[in-house]
Amino acid sequence: MLEQLGINAKKAAGILTAVHTEQKNEALYAISKALVDHAYEIIAKNNIDLANGKKAGLSDGLLDRLMLNEERIKGIADGCVQVAELDDPCGKIIEETIRPNGLKIQKISCPIGVIGIIYEARPNVTADAAALCLKSGNAVILRGGKEAIESNKAIANIMRDAVATAGLPKDAIQLVTDTSRESSTALMKMKDYLDCLIPRGSAGLIKAVVENSTVPVIETGSGNCHIYVDKSADVDMAAEIIFNAKTQRVSVCNACESIVIHSEILEKALPVIKEKLDEKAVIIRADERARAVCPDTESATELDFATEYGDYIISVKTVDSLDEAIDHINKNSTGHSEAIITNDENNARVFMNRIDSSSVYHNASTRFTDGGEFGLGAEIGISTQKLHARGPMGLEGLTTTKYLIFGNGQVR
Amino acid sequence: MLEQLGINAKKAAGILTAVHTEQKNEALYAISKALVDHAYEIIAKNNIDLANGKKAGLSDGLLDRLMLNEERIKGIADGCVQVAELDDPCGKIIEETIRPNGLKIQKISCPIGVIGIIYEARPNVTADAAALCLKSGNAVILRGGKEAIESNKAIANIMRDAVATAGLPKDAIQLVTDTSRESSTALMKMKDYLDCLIPRGSAGLIKAVVENSTVPVIETGSGNCHIYVDKSADVDMAAEIIFNAKTQRVSVCNACESIVIHSEILEKALPVIKEKLDEKAVIIRADERARAVCPDTESATELDFATEYGDYIISVKTVDSLDEAIDHINKNSTGHSEAIITNDENNARVFMNRIDSSSVYHNASTRFTDGGEFGLGAEIGISTQKLHARGPMGLEGLTTTKYLIFGNGQVR
Repeated sequence: MLEQLGINAKKAAGILTAVHTEQKNEALYAISKALVDHAYEIIAKNNIDLANGKKAGLSDGLLDRLMLNEERIKGIADGCVQVAELDDPCGKIIEETIRPNGLKIQKISCPIGVIGIIYEARPNVTADAAALCLKSGNAVILRGGKEAIESNKAIANIMRDAVATAGLPKDAIQLVTDTSRESSTALMKMKDYLDCLIPRGSAGLIKAVVENSTVPVIETGSGNCHIYVDKSADVDMAAEIIFNAKTQRVSVCNACESIVIHSEILEKALPVIKEKLDEKAVIIRADERARAVCPDTESATELDFATEYGDYIISVKTVDSLDEAIDHINKNSTGHSEAIITNDENNARVFMNRIDSSSVYHNASTRFTDGGEFGLGAEIGISTQKLHARGPMGLEGLTTTKYLIFGNGQVR
Repeated sequence: MLEQLGINAKKAAGILTAVHTEQKNEALYAISKALVDHAYEIIAKNNIDLANGKKAGLSDGLLDRLMLNEERIKGIADGCVQVAELDDPCGKIIEETIRPNGLKIQKISCPIGVIGIIYEARPNVTADAAALCLKSGNAVILRGGKEAIESNKAIANIMRDAVATAGLPKDAIQLVTDTSRESSTALMKMKDYLDCLIPRGSAGLIKAVVENSTVPVIETGSGNCHIYVDKSADVDMAAEIIFNAKTQRVSVCNACESIVIHSEILEKALPVIKEKLDEKAVIIRADERARAVCPDTESATELDFATEYGDYIISVKTVDSLDEAIDHINKNSTGHSEAIITNDENNARVFMNRIDSSSVYHNASTRFTDGGEFGLGAEIGISTQKLHARGPMGLEGLTTTKYLIFGNGQVR
């Protein structure tokens, strides 16, 4: 069954690669309209998922992510229009050379082919990911969590019908309706059909995909982000940035999870930072030296420094040098986003050069690591790996390149 | 033991990422000189490998790949100088924007970090790969085949000492001296230390790495390349190009393995192509329709169409349309290099657009898919996958990007 989806997707991808931008956009507008037109149908199916979720004891947070209402569906539909309005990332001539033997060599951008997306209980991903894949000329196989299966089936069917009205193959968008663990594992082994697999969700999901997949994976979204308060930091700026990066939205991957602080500024800075974090009752887990300054904190273990809390908790590590800060961060971070707060330009330069993360900030909040904030338009995720795409990944990350070579009989 | 190599490599990578181009080049010149100065030492160790190889019954082809003499060592040393003379791929500002909130966002190129190379019995790869990794600021862990272990140890030690004379960490270059299958498998699981793994060698090696590795892999070098003779082809050009692509060097990955031919030109073209291939006694394995035209051929099976011969053998498949040719090729190719021979510009455009391979030619030999021929300088391999790098992969393929964000207190 899964293999049939693979065959269908390959076929659809072969058609999509040669389709004009206008036709892809027409399909995206049709999808947007269809989602709004069928909102009540989607909501009815979503209610089934919500009822099942409540029975299964899903947390309020998960139920909220699962829930669709008219406003949210309108938001998803608007997202499809926004994707239609972005530049087509395919067909760009990236390089062109004429070799001494007369061969003209063009490096052009083109679709990757067939992309698999494995995700959890957020039905909006079904539409968001499909829209981005369609715009970039890729066929997509979606495999969402069982919690959202009824919503996902409704959304996918509406999108498939809309795609057909624009004259494109329905199989540009396919949903795996078998939500067993086996179907997920089988998808990870479909190297003959899938060109790329993108997991979106928890650290556990991402780990499972990385360990089991023979399809090339793009890891996204795991964020144990650090803010380093250097000895020459502006203390008030440090407190404002840390407060923002920790508390503006605690569940997101670019939230700050750990403060690294220079011992020479510890006594001056930590009480100011703590006072600010107290406004939202953030729990501070600190090492011994920091606790000596702010005793009204919990004791941090090594495990704390490796933890992405996703909650109103933050760890504090005291260091005696910039080098120690860099080593500590490179050891514990997930390679997502880190910041230095300093008035020393040279220290900022060294930090930004040596920190091994997708996005490195000087005097700004880590919360800006986001496709929209970076001006990339919509994003499929934030890559925390180094191959292919790193950091916020927009439409360009869903393309590959190929060489076209024009000759008139050249041989070697 | 392997983990220690990983720790050393991470440490070296942390230093290399902040090193100036001049110092990396100094190390490359030092390596080049040291390889020539110690040529006899390398040859003595290589003789041990050759003697062991003969005892183990290695083929003449393998023994030739394994063999080093003064001339070949000079060639390897010259290669290091050529790499020194290439542009540094790191530190380039790829994009720069200033956002409405005043954040300056730079996307820059930087080293990947730690790269693993798994290869077979070619000791030249030890030096070639290390030089490319060093120039691109990456630490490398080399794991060559047991057949070349004595040569590899000699070359690696000479390179490590030379790197140190330039003030860089020796551990920029490390060799796995345990050549058991277990060490190879363990390397594939070293996700905490390796950022990327590049297998170079046989299809079997590449398959094993793809199936077992949890480290992101860049697949290279498997090439079942096709040349399609369209109905409007210039028959003499087709014969010359096929002859060149098949016979100029049969063992390479960009050699042609299969002819796809339009039925309307079959009778006219195949005898001309066969006459040319007969000059080098190429065995032709053809389908029934082609055999009806040229009976002095062998019968092809479906397996033939999926085979990279690497030998004086070529298959022939007859098709009735451009679409059938494209479908046949996309089904059987390894995504390396394919060509169309045609005088019909529109057919060429459709073929180049829809063929899903790294390099697609119009009226030229597939043999040009090569870093040197494409003007990229040295290459680490030819990627047949779609993520990160596709086609001939030079220094740029050994870099990643990161975002540097400069603020003055911005919060979200």
